[in-house]
Amino acid sequence: MNKFQQIELVRPGKFNKLSLVENSLNSLAADHLRIKVQFSGLNFADVMMRLGLYPDAPPAPFCPGYEISGEVIEIGKNIKGLQLGDFVMAGMHFGGYSSICDAPAWQVRKIPAHWKSDKAAAMIVSGLTCDLAFGELARVRNSDRIMIDCASGALGALSIQYLLQLGVKEIIGLTSRESKMDIIRERGARPMLLKEWYESSEKVDVVLNSRGGESLHRDRSMLNPLGRLVAIGASHMVKKGRLSFTNVIKEFLKIKKVSPIDLMNENHGIFGLNVLKLFQQPKVLTKSLDNLSGGKFSLNPHIDKVFSPHQIEEALDYLGAGRSCGKVLIDWRKI
Amino acid sequence: MNKFQQIELVRPGKFNKLSLVENSLNSLAADHLRIKVQFSGLNFADVMMRLGLYPDAPPAPFCPGYEISGEVIEIGKNIKGLQLGDFVMAGMHFGGYSSICDAPAWQVRKIPAHWKSDKAAAMIVSGLTCDLAFGELARVRNSDRIMIDCASGALGALSIQYLLQLGVKEIIGLTSRESKMDIIRERGARPMLLKEWYESSEKVDVVLNSRGGESLHRDRSMLNPLGRLVAIGASHMVKKGRLSFTNVIKEFLKIKKVSPIDLMNENHGIFGLNVLKLFQQPKVLTKSLDNLSGGKFSLNPHIDKVFSPHQIEEALDYLGAGRSCGKVLIDWRKI
Repeated sequence: MNKFQQIELVRPGKFNKLSLVENSLNSLAADHLRIKVQFSGLNFADVMMRLGLYPDAPPAPFCPGYEISGEVIEIGKNIKGLQLGDFVMAGMHFGGYSSICDAPAWQVRKIPAHWKSDKAAAMIVSGLTCDLAFGELARVRNSDRIMIDCASGALGALSIQYLLQLGVKEIIGLTSRESKMDIIRERGARPMLLKEWYESSEKVDVVLNSRGGESLHRDRSMLNPLGRLVAIGASHMVKKGRLSFTNVIKEFLKIKKVSPIDLMNENHGIFGLNVLKLFQQPKVLTKSLDNLSGGKFSLNPHIDKVFSPHQIEEALDYLGAGRSCGKVLIDWRKI
Repeated sequence: MNKFQQIELVRPGKFNKLSLVENSLNSLAADHLRIKVQFSGLNFADVMMRLGLYPDAPPAPFCPGYEISGEVIEIGKNIKGLQLGDFVMAGMHFGGYSSICDAPAWQVRKIPAHWKSDKAAAMIVSGLTCDLAFGELARVRNSDRIMIDCASGALGALSIQYLLQLGVKEIIGLTSRESKMDIIRERGARPMLLKEWYESSEKVDVVLNSRGGESLHRDRSMLNPLGRLVAIGASHMVKKGRLSFTNVIKEFLKIKKVSPIDLMNENHGIFGLNVLKLFQQPKVLTKSLDNLSGGKFSLNPHIDKVFSPHQIEEALDYLGAGRSCGKVLIDWRKI
């Protein structure tokens, strides 16, 4: 009863170096909850981390993972408002690839009665990213025209729902694959192929950019005056789940910083968002976690595929390959 | 009757090269109004322009000036809603230092009955800057803590009024002069000396930065996570109304661009605003002009000093010296 399993990233940058290991539980801190995990969510940052491309990762070996759902099995002595047996979801600052997680109470939210625990795990990182990118940083208005460059993925699904619920009427969803255009359309956005986008004369007020590198500057050129771009990642560095050395070198050569003078001349803004950096800022994240779980928005994450903990490498390969159209999860009940 | 006076900038970069000249009127365009000017507003951009530091200035000789108030004396044949004898204010894309101005109707607004025409001329550029910086770019919320670095000037006066009317509770107003602290306090902000600011542990959600250069980066370091900075100028390059060569060289050496990676790591945003670039974008400016004249905000510009057209050089020296605490105007009735 004193043992639990977790997935450790043994050596980033090399493949096949994720292992399922057994560890012993420590005693629970007074302001923490102990959660028996049902689902852990995978994120693109994990793919980057596995490739050694994530500077904020702890020294290896470490346990990745930012989002879980499960059942409360122990309660720190300072905890109020949550009970043994409650089903909860939690944002984790690493450590989420684990059969049991200890989480500070402020990062934990009770799962609303009508939610399933797979959806709850799939909600945290994408939901926080939506709320922070559109609600808190860009402060989107319903009159804004918006372009999302990751429209076919897990974040794209929630982003489109979030924006439609804000009353936004025009959402362009980019994809590089013709096969994903129908999914984007069904989600409520207007699909557009990447190559069409730059050739079009579409102008938007808000861009959500997850590709990074050169695309930041090209996307900014598609903004209306008073427009804003939110940069959330650098997915371009990865190709088919493998580190693309050509892309990395190309991207590094192309990393252009942004000149404040250019921003003035074009009346543009650029935001950076790294949700993980905010996991140690309760004041900032509390409101967004409440928005997700408290019903301000009614978001329904799309789950693409569920793997067992033993299949973690396959699961990360699958996510990194860019073929998924929603969240990829680990189901700890399958261990 | 066919003649009018205007002030021309003969040769930027040299002093004493502003002349009052007489020109002939052309016939009025169908969508323009002809305005007999009472007041022209001076702006810091004019000081920069006189020093040859404003890349967007037209080739010399040209007539500067972005804001006027006066009486309609002729109406283009397509104009509706304004009449001969109406008192109006107008934003001008250059040409405002003039006894008579022709302006496209969309840039012109009738002066509300209880306004004086000196206040109207003083309203345009500062008012648009407020509304665009805080209302449209930063999209300020009343829970935001805000720092304004030009709190004692004309823009500072309107900014503080605008923010207080939005319900903002915490406004820090920077100044480099101890003597201006009382004015800032009376306007409703908390005054702070520049040197105290960086040594303090104050963190804010929104910065309005008019100093430019190195201060952009230092001010950004004072932002909370999810904070935003709006860059509107580079006043640091000018010292006591003269071009400070030391400052210009220092600033050029220090022009640091902004790394999107840094913005991500800090969850910050940076906007650039150049109101003058928007004078050719009716769609963008119309709403802000309506906000100023239509009563969404009730702003009361502070007028510091009024000069005659013959005193234009003295007036620009006075503005550039940084001792004014409000708008500097030219009164064309004093010609």
